[in-house]
Amino acid sequence: MADRSAGGFATRKVVKRLSVYRRLLERIGQAGAKNVFSHDLAAQAGVTAAQVRRDLMTIGFSGSPSRGYDVSRLVDKIGQYLDAPQWQSVVLVGVGHVGQALLAYFSGRGPHLAITGAFDADPGKVNRVIQGCRCYPVDDMEARVRQLGAEVGIIAVPGDAAQHTALQLMRGGVRGILNFAPTHLRLPEYVYVENVDITVLLERVAFFARQGSLDKEAVR
Amino acid sequence: MADRSAGGFATRKVVKRLSVYRRLLERIGQAGAKNVFSHDLAAQAGVTAAQVRRDLMTIGFSGSPSRGYDVSRLVDKIGQYLDAPQWQSVVLVGVGHVGQALLAYFSGRGPHLAITGAFDADPGKVNRVIQGCRCYPVDDMEARVRQLGAEVGIIAVPGDAAQHTALQLMRGGVRGILNFAPTHLRLPEYVYVENVDITVLLERVAFFARQGSLDKEAVR
Repeated sequence: MADRSAGGFATRKVVKRLSVYRRLLERIGQAGAKNVFSHDLAAQAGVTAAQVRRDLMTIGFSGSPSRGYDVSRLVDKIGQYLDAPQWQSVVLVGVGHVGQALLAYFSGRGPHLAITGAFDADPGKVNRVIQGCRCYPVDDMEARVRQLGAEVGIIAVPGDAAQHTALQLMRGGVRGILNFAPTHLRLPEYVYVENVDITVLLERVAFFARQGSLDKEAVR
Repeated sequence: MADRSAGGFATRKVVKRLSVYRRLLERIGQAGAKNVFSHDLAAQAGVTAAQVRRDLMTIGFSGSPSRGYDVSRLVDKIGQYLDAPQWQSVVLVGVGHVGQALLAYFSGRGPHLAITGAFDADPGKVNRVIQGCRCYPVDDMEARVRQLGAEVGIIAVPGDAAQHTALQLMRGGVRGILNFAPTHLRLPEYVYVENVDITVLLERVAFFARQGSLDKEAVR
């Protein structure tokens, strides 16, 4: 909550949806379809067809009323909007369970984002290659982040280390942070932060699951 | 996006914030503080003090103007609102990198939510205990979920298996799903879904990080 963004609120939502559309379109293309209608894409994304058309108009893409959107051209067009002209360097801090899963998950995934370095405070982890990624000591972070040219950082450290980590990343040149630590980061406006607190998310799901079960019982 | 909820939109946001407050309060309490003012809690949560006071009023809690909120009483009060009277059973499907990290992360965490079973399609994983959790075959899922009494499910399977997995969980009695698969799940209204698509989140962070860097260059 209370993420900061360089763009406005509408832009952030459009960017999120474009990214979702692309993942769905890649799957649709792999299944062999050449074209897709806005209402099909909308149903898979959980939005309205009008929303899909508006979003794609903002990036200057329109479909044919009879055949819909050309899947591969649309994937390219979204990529031109979302992706950096060259690849972007990402660093990860905190090579625990979650950090290692993220390294494994992103290892060699897509040409646009690459995790170029990881950091950990544990001497048993530093100067080793973990899940294909070199692990550096945290003392080194600011200079190393600058050397790696990283604009993006992933924080997967314990909550009490997150704020200090974020400041080091920022001083090294990071301008966007994906934060898995249960901590609200206090950073300048020009650093974009996206928070993923898995415990908070699971608690919320559990709360509404219980309500759903109670509703069902009331209906019986 | 387009999550469905048993409650209204306001309730979902309040629940999310209460969960965040509790995590911050636990940290504040561990650091030795007995009381906290709404503006301190608000700053750490990234919301306004008025928002904190409104949220806590909805659960019937108020502080003293001179001393603020009693930390441990407030943690208890939020727990009475958010947590089940007994613990809730959670199952996880997909014991890959992300699934194993989640098992390790939630293993023995808190008395209110417990992962009681995991499922995987890989015969090399089933009937083993992984990160302290028994792993069952996916064929078994519906009956096993019912036997475990699970209302909450975590999906960490590949995208093309997610919809089928969600339906099996639902038929077994699950009413809330935390979905890490890059797939919009089509389920009845009474099943609450929270989506966490890590690739989409990282792409969004990368997009705004680039904009932030461009802004900085423009300023120079």
